[in-house]
Amino acid sequence: MQKIFSYQQLYQFTYSIFIAIGCNNEDATTATEALLAADLRGIDSHGIARLVGYVRLWEAQRVNAKPQIKIVYETPSTAVVDGDSGLGLVVAPFAMQVAIDKAKNVGTGWVSVRNSNHFGIAGYHAMMALEHDMIGMAMTNASALVAPTFSIERMLGTNPIAVAIPAKNQPAFVADFATTTAANGKLELLQRKNADAPIGWVQDENGNDSVDANILKKNGALLPLGSDREHGSHKGYALGSIVDIFSAVLSGASYGPWAPPFPAYVSMPENMPGKGLGHFFGAMRVDAFRPADEFKYHMDNWIERFRKAKPAEGFDKVLIPGDPEREMEIIRAKEGIPIVDAVVDELKKLGERFDIQL
Amino acid sequence: MQKIFSYQQLYQFTYSIFIAIGCNNEDATTATEALLAADLRGIDSHGIARLVGYVRLWEAQRVNAKPQIKIVYETPSTAVVDGDSGLGLVVAPFAMQVAIDKAKNVGTGWVSVRNSNHFGIAGYHAMMALEHDMIGMAMTNASALVAPTFSIERMLGTNPIAVAIPAKNQPAFVADFATTTAANGKLELLQRKNADAPIGWVQDENGNDSVDANILKKNGALLPLGSDREHGSHKGYALGSIVDIFSAVLSGASYGPWAPPFPAYVSMPENMPGKGLGHFFGAMRVDAFRPADEFKYHMDNWIERFRKAKPAEGFDKVLIPGDPEREMEIIRAKEGIPIVDAVVDELKKLGERFDIQL
Repeated sequence: MQKIFSYQQLYQFTYSIFIAIGCNNEDATTATEALLAADLRGIDSHGIARLVGYVRLWEAQRVNAKPQIKIVYETPSTAVVDGDSGLGLVVAPFAMQVAIDKAKNVGTGWVSVRNSNHFGIAGYHAMMALEHDMIGMAMTNASALVAPTFSIERMLGTNPIAVAIPAKNQPAFVADFATTTAANGKLELLQRKNADAPIGWVQDENGNDSVDANILKKNGALLPLGSDREHGSHKGYALGSIVDIFSAVLSGASYGPWAPPFPAYVSMPENMPGKGLGHFFGAMRVDAFRPADEFKYHMDNWIERFRKAKPAEGFDKVLIPGDPEREMEIIRAKEGIPIVDAVVDELKKLGERFDIQL
Repeated sequence: MQKIFSYQQLYQFTYSIFIAIGCNNEDATTATEALLAADLRGIDSHGIARLVGYVRLWEAQRVNAKPQIKIVYETPSTAVVDGDSGLGLVVAPFAMQVAIDKAKNVGTGWVSVRNSNHFGIAGYHAMMALEHDMIGMAMTNASALVAPTFSIERMLGTNPIAVAIPAKNQPAFVADFATTTAANGKLELLQRKNADAPIGWVQDENGNDSVDANILKKNGALLPLGSDREHGSHKGYALGSIVDIFSAVLSGASYGPWAPPFPAYVSMPENMPGKGLGHFFGAMRVDAFRPADEFKYHMDNWIERFRKAKPAEGFDKVLIPGDPEREMEIIRAKEGIPIVDAVVDELKKLGERFDIQL
């Protein structure tokens, strides 16, 4: 069912593929690290399993392997970055670095990005801020799979939000989540197992409840966080909309139902109102609010208090956002990363084309 | 069951009460406008129904009617404001104005607030940014009523987030929502009607599903947006946590289970790690990203496209965040504001004490 690879094996393979499609050494390194952060952290749907998809986008000339990424508009605390159709895995770290640099100067930095592509996991980019004693934020729009409350039309992507907050002795607080009830990757896992989805994750083409994990192929839609109106789906819809607007309307990327699709075989929407996919990044120096040591002391206290919250029967403990991914990263760095056979086969075929061994 | 009052009647009464407890003219005006924005917009739980509660906090010396609100820490794009235990209704507009002023200078402004109190509806403060062609954000922590995923202990408040985004010919996009499945005010409505709550809003003291709208009085808890783990409650828990940290850990207010309670009869938590309640405000000039006209043209396009999203059977149309409240405001400004009898009686008693007629 699956094979175990070391991080180094996957790194060498992925890096070589990015070099093979024309990335320079620096970009290939950046992209490989950003992509494999997902596999290390246990978010398998966003890691090496997507490498074939990125290469297909390059073949379809939707990804530019030699982008001239640049700042096209700025103020002391803001910038718009044009990704020149580069890999989001390369464009996003560039833009996050701009946010960090601005925060160094004026306390915070906010960067909206246009003309980019899928950027891997949002959490990786947000976490770039941590070593600078900054709070990091990252979000992105994505191709439309989500129906707003009261609708049967797919208007928004799963539009994730990540927020990383440094602490002192405790590990950082790292939230990273799709603004839908369940991310698309969760559906893909169920498809592989031929299992049903819980009620509240998806609806069919008429807006009825569905448990069919394949319903997106039948004009169904993912549901915003909250699932239905009574349980707050209008809040998930609002969150996904905010991500879309910050990422794409602020920057001049394509928004809402016009966001470019990830699968290269899906044709581009007509009359796109902007360029490519959009992202949004933020960095806030914690010492722009209070001395960093004081802030981190209280973050430790916050985290320790929440860890001690009384668990419900049947549960060991309350988790802090980022705990599961960090624990997974420790295990996988040591014991290797399991890749399901279907993905291994795909990667091998990809490698053969470029004469690169997995 | 209810009486109708004009906005002017409620304004005169509320203003007079704030003057009676010692607010100066400017603060009483600010507080009255912020408070009644809730009644106008149909968020009855956060409007004049809370006036008695504010007065009780003043009597308990937890609210200072003559605060010296000031900036205690700042960088070009950030500030921490100390509210000097003032009414949140007064402290919040002060802090939001600081954010707006900073945005004028460097593109964005971010203000974390400590030593404050309940600030009414978040949306009112976020919307202050709109007339400046800025995106406004407002959030606040609140006394703990919400159990994190896997827990039975109340650790977070309903911690709302508001985001207001200007458009051109379309009305502004205004999202304003608690990071729980249902706000506490929704439970209060059910209590009055003696009705059950839907599964997924609350849990009992052991963490079991409950439909009891009075369960918070029996050591139950509100559930984070998402309701349960399978439907993403860890995302609602993360959102509520982010609001708590931005509002209170950044500023030096009391966070998590130590947030001061709204009812004056509930004693203050022991060993509070900060001062009072915390808020967080943001303002981003849209022309810090692209020309304002261009941005607003695309916001119109975004809104118009979402309005045209295909509705599900049985629904007229897809709503844009802020639509219901704006429509309510138009009706209530014209036809008056209905106040339920129980609240009218309370207000009359309050008025008698200060010799003020409703």
